[in-house]
Amino acid sequence: MLDELSEVGRNPRSGGFDRFAWTDVDTECRQWFEQCAAALGLDVETDRNGNLWAWWNEAAPGSALVLGSHLDSVPSGGAFDGPLGVASAFAAIGDLQRDGFEPSRPIAVVAFADEEGARFGVACVGSRLLTGSISPASALALRDVDGVTLAEAMARVGIAPADLGADRRRIARIGEFIELHVEQGHLRTDSGSAGLGAAGSALGLATCIWPHGRWRADIAGSQNHAGTTPMADRDDPMIGLARLVLDVRQRARAAGILATVGKVKVEPGAVNAVPGLVSAWIDARGDDESRVRETIAQLGVELVEESWTSTTPFDADLTASVDGVLGGSVPRLPSGAGHDAGVIALAGIPAAMILVRNPTGISHAPAERAEPDDCDLGVAALRSILRSRAS
Amino acid sequence: MLDELSEVGRNPRSGGFDRFAWTDVDTECRQWFEQCAAALGLDVETDRNGNLWAWWNEAAPGSALVLGSHLDSVPSGGAFDGPLGVASAFAAIGDLQRDGFEPSRPIAVVAFADEEGARFGVACVGSRLLTGSISPASALALRDVDGVTLAEAMARVGIAPADLGADRRRIARIGEFIELHVEQGHLRTDSGSAGLGAAGSALGLATCIWPHGRWRADIAGSQNHAGTTPMADRDDPMIGLARLVLDVRQRARAAGILATVGKVKVEPGAVNAVPGLVSAWIDARGDDESRVRETIAQLGVELVEESWTSTTPFDADLTASVDGVLGGSVPRLPSGAGHDAGVIALAGIPAAMILVRNPTGISHAPAERAEPDDCDLGVAALRSILRSRAS
Repeated sequence: MLDELSEVGRNPRSGGFDRFAWTDVDTECRQWFEQCAAALGLDVETDRNGNLWAWWNEAAPGSALVLGSHLDSVPSGGAFDGPLGVASAFAAIGDLQRDGFEPSRPIAVVAFADEEGARFGVACVGSRLLTGSISPASALALRDVDGVTLAEAMARVGIAPADLGADRRRIARIGEFIELHVEQGHLRTDSGSAGLGAAGSALGLATCIWPHGRWRADIAGSQNHAGTTPMADRDDPMIGLARLVLDVRQRARAAGILATVGKVKVEPGAVNAVPGLVSAWIDARGDDESRVRETIAQLGVELVEESWTSTTPFDADLTASVDGVLGGSVPRLPSGAGHDAGVIALAGIPAAMILVRNPTGISHAPAERAEPDDCDLGVAALRSILRSRAS
Repeated sequence: MLDELSEVGRNPRSGGFDRFAWTDVDTECRQWFEQCAAALGLDVETDRNGNLWAWWNEAAPGSALVLGSHLDSVPSGGAFDGPLGVASAFAAIGDLQRDGFEPSRPIAVVAFADEEGARFGVACVGSRLLTGSISPASALALRDVDGVTLAEAMARVGIAPADLGADRRRIARIGEFIELHVEQGHLRTDSGSAGLGAAGSALGLATCIWPHGRWRADIAGSQNHAGTTPMADRDDPMIGLARLVLDVRQRARAAGILATVGKVKVEPGAVNAVPGLVSAWIDARGDDESRVRETIAQLGVELVEESWTSTTPFDADLTASVDGVLGGSVPRLPSGAGHDAGVIALAGIPAAMILVRNPTGISHAPAERAEPDDCDLGVAALRSILRSRAS
């Protein structure tokens, strides 16, 4: 099924994928979702916040068991981050249908909109809008680099901005949410192994999402001509950027957290001009909230906090139950990356995450990888969960 | 006359101007040129390389006295860099016409195309094409950040890419070229003053253009997820950028040259991704060629030389003659910035530059400034030169 997406949004230079929310490429991904659902006879609907749902046995009594993930990507992202969870859910349902399985409760596959935040800068916008953890007004005002607002981008694909916002009735239908996702990095498992590969396991269960935040430093200087301004007279914000980048790394290492400057904007960005303004975005995470926040606070620059999410534990009972279905000895490990499952968990809905072994640990890059056999084990796990929890 | 351009390409945030070659804004500037020329009864033509010419007394015998500059800008550029030279030429001609002056030789005002190179990365493309110092093939293949080639951009405004290239007949018509331009920086005059302000003079004459070049460093790393990749396992090219920026500054100071990192490209440029590639552009100049080149060579990174221009002296006889017309004691100073007049000089055509005092020295920025009285003195100088050299 992922092969059908292998050319959608492909970046010819990097070989990765550029699938940004509400672009034509995103629409192609969403059409793929609809085709997958149609092939299984599932009813597809788009909710008020642009999330896609495919229902199996929608009319059955009880609250739904929801599986899924997202379809959008970071720039030059990998093939698995997001689509693996959606495709695996469809594959598991297809297998069960062929076996004649009749679910006793509603089952849904969801593709949350705009998870990566690659275009508008805020992650998990679809699930945050659904649960009310971001206000429609602040979401709609987000702008992409071309100045297009989220409101304009969503309206362009037929989603009415006025309809956005917390959707209590829909949330009430979600009994539990299980997101299957490719492993990202090789974070320590509960037995101390460096990732699932070292633990010798194709699958893992996430215990929590690390606390994580995004900050922006706007470093001001004096724009001037590069060929005529004496070095001694310059107020060059690129120097401030250089110091910040090195400082972020040094402090992150010392504190044992992860911190990254991955996005930079230089104005005016001309070869022959000393810049007037450099903006740098800092992403920081770790297993300990206070250490992350203290490290960021120690950077000697003024920062705008663009987002902050505390440690998000996944549901212990649901995770234990999934573990039991899968044999009772699945390695547990935290997730360094944020996920829609975290947003759902914060809304009080039982949520769990199954991670599929990534041999290199590389993610958010073209080299992201999951072996076909491991992906099959992921599908098999979802099959067992569906059989166990919807019989 | 410059007031008529005061909203054309204005960047509402910075207050500067974004006038990039072959954009709609550029077309507006070129229409302004045509209107100025028409008001004076001058004949306008666009040459094969997209440069604009306005002719006064075109049919007169002899080679032309050409005045002018350019109309495009760097991002958030100032109001004077380029347009001042063009508007002053038109103003001088208008004054002489009102006085009933009849030139004895052809006079032209030129607006060279794409001087700043802000869009396609190479400066003075219009004058370089005219003189043959850049080949049509290499110019046409230049791309802007959106991947649009110069060929496509020029064809869009009706200039046939196939017609580009050295234009010997047109060059043969240029007897001499005098470019009036706002002072950029406060470079030392021949009497040791820091710029025209310190020298107490509204006008100056440029002796030469400093040797200058552009280099690109492509710093490769390993793209990965910012939330899951241990600090110790990272190959983060942003670190290389930070070190390069600091190294460029330190070496430039030590060598007494100017060197700048003004443009940076981060791929993929996502907040939550360790970059895979960072490209940085270095601009370097100084009064001594070998010191500039040696400083760049000492940077410990692989560099692509995107351009290099040796010291360009202006015509000593023409400069002395202009000095004589203006009273015989005009301060002389070098230009740290490149100019079309330099390209023309390198083609063997007598060329000179008049610089108009800039109180702050700031250029390539919204704060670029020239006082109205000083601009009037610039126009008066051009009037005197026309009277002296075209009577």
